[in-house]
Amino acid sequence: MTDLQKLSSSKHFGGKLEKYSHQSSSTNCVMTFNIYLPEAAVNGTKVPVLYCLGGLTSSEENFATKAGAASFAAKYGLALVFPDTSPRNVDVPEAGVASDLGYGAGFYLTATQEPWAKNWNMYDYVAKELPALLDAQFPIDTKRQGITGHSMGGHGALTIFLKNQQNYTSISAFAPILHPTNCAWGQKAFPAYLGDDATTWNNYDTIHLLRRYVSENNLRKDFKALIDQGTGDVFLEKQLFTNEFIQATKDLGIESQFEVRFQDGYDHGYYFISTFVADHIDHHAKALGLTAAQ
Amino acid sequence: MTDLQKLSSSKHFGGKLEKYSHQSSSTNCVMTFNIYLPEAAVNGTKVPVLYCLGGLTSSEENFATKAGAASFAAKYGLALVFPDTSPRNVDVPEAGVASDLGYGAGFYLTATQEPWAKNWNMYDYVAKELPALLDAQFPIDTKRQGITGHSMGGHGALTIFLKNQQNYTSISAFAPILHPTNCAWGQKAFPAYLGDDATTWNNYDTIHLLRRYVSENNLRKDFKALIDQGTGDVFLEKQLFTNEFIQATKDLGIESQFEVRFQDGYDHGYYFISTFVADHIDHHAKALGLTAAQ
Repeated sequence: MTDLQKLSSSKHFGGKLEKYSHQSSSTNCVMTFNIYLPEAAVNGTKVPVLYCLGGLTSSEENFATKAGAASFAAKYGLALVFPDTSPRNVDVPEAGVASDLGYGAGFYLTATQEPWAKNWNMYDYVAKELPALLDAQFPIDTKRQGITGHSMGGHGALTIFLKNQQNYTSISAFAPILHPTNCAWGQKAFPAYLGDDATTWNNYDTIHLLRRYVSENNLRKDFKALIDQGTGDVFLEKQLFTNEFIQATKDLGIESQFEVRFQDGYDHGYYFISTFVADHIDHHAKALGLTAAQ
Repeated sequence: MTDLQKLSSSKHFGGKLEKYSHQSSSTNCVMTFNIYLPEAAVNGTKVPVLYCLGGLTSSEENFATKAGAASFAAKYGLALVFPDTSPRNVDVPEAGVASDLGYGAGFYLTATQEPWAKNWNMYDYVAKELPALLDAQFPIDTKRQGITGHSMGGHGALTIFLKNQQNYTSISAFAPILHPTNCAWGQKAFPAYLGDDATTWNNYDTIHLLRRYVSENNLRKDFKALIDQGTGDVFLEKQLFTNEFIQATKDLGIESQFEVRFQDGYDHGYYFISTFVADHIDHHAKALGLTAAQ
């Protein structure tokens, strides 16, 4: 981790928005991320952190520049981390062909198939390597973490949270992909990254994970997830499966742990996310025990 | 104006963020702009408007997606218009060579020199054509207008305001180019667009225009401009000339009409703009007589 390089630093809402790169042991390439450090962190105080995971085709830039989250994070003294969504610039020609496989399409999993296995390990990167790096090199208290994300990043946030429930205090998502084993995006990416045995795909499917953890009695009872979903989102019916998710939580008797809000007329983009990001920061801050400065 | 085409529409803070294209009679090409219509306008009520002019290399996208202004515009029932910063896709090979001349570098002037004279007429576009189009085709009251901008767009906002003081109620700017006849950007662009007679450049220089209007007793007394400038802005000394501007307003006895705020450590980018955009929307709303909904 000694190769961490600061690429830029901009003052932002009293704190700093910084971009870093480093050689990743998970993805075996140079990874870039943005981080928002509120004023207290800039002054050396350890602060809690919210991971903000991006969707298909996005990078570490989109959520940092378009969501408008830092304004509210500043108020609470909360750091924000914006990872990239896949390895970059690796020797995998297939990675640059499609918008839903390869670059910008890491799906927050650990690939087992060629040519992806060496690099496409965004699960390890986000769930393990990045927290360790933050703990070692930033004024961040990784014992107090929340996680959120958009679309593919909402899928990442929910699945990483469920598989590491002890590591995250709070969880939310914007228009998450909730049942990727059943939608076209997942049915393209999962066999490519994980192979043809569809039972391995279930490790990265929110509905399947909920069924597993409830049946094993391993679902925490003390969290409440916030999910916002626009009704004007063209991906709602065929890729996101929000209604199937709600039904699954009812079937499992856990619907009270998921507040799913349908937002009338909003679409899948950042104009939707920015409209509701204040509620999500409030949600995480409350769970993390933070109070707003006046 | 019958060729106005809606390219996209996204619900955003209760209103709509829409993108349009149209054939421009000023620039003789297809121009694209973004517009934020607050909920009242979507419902047909005529609302006031704030023009938000972009800087070098930007388009109609940057201010709309990165500044975070719509949240506050929604609160006041204020429309926002984000024009592009130059003509696009015209038969001028020179336009794509540099980042500070041609595409993305309209400088809000009326070019008189070849190969620019046919298209590079962003002054007419922003000051005349766009207000007429909004008046005819949108629920916007162009009798109640404000104007703001960033860097080259701050130059545009101030010069367009000064030359049309009767048309705008309010004015502000982020890190504006205040004396382009004396900085490298202006000294490259102005001879190319306007020719070698430097007296013609003064028509597009805020300090020169202030001297002219004060000497002619044609400067309105009833406005107060708000200007924010980061002290960490690498362009401050050599391109923006903020201190020279302040001295000029003192020399002219009009310093009380310009509130110039130096913001400690902030740079030239949108992380700076978004930090202070709430103050600018408040400034325009107050001048326009708007009150915030709770």
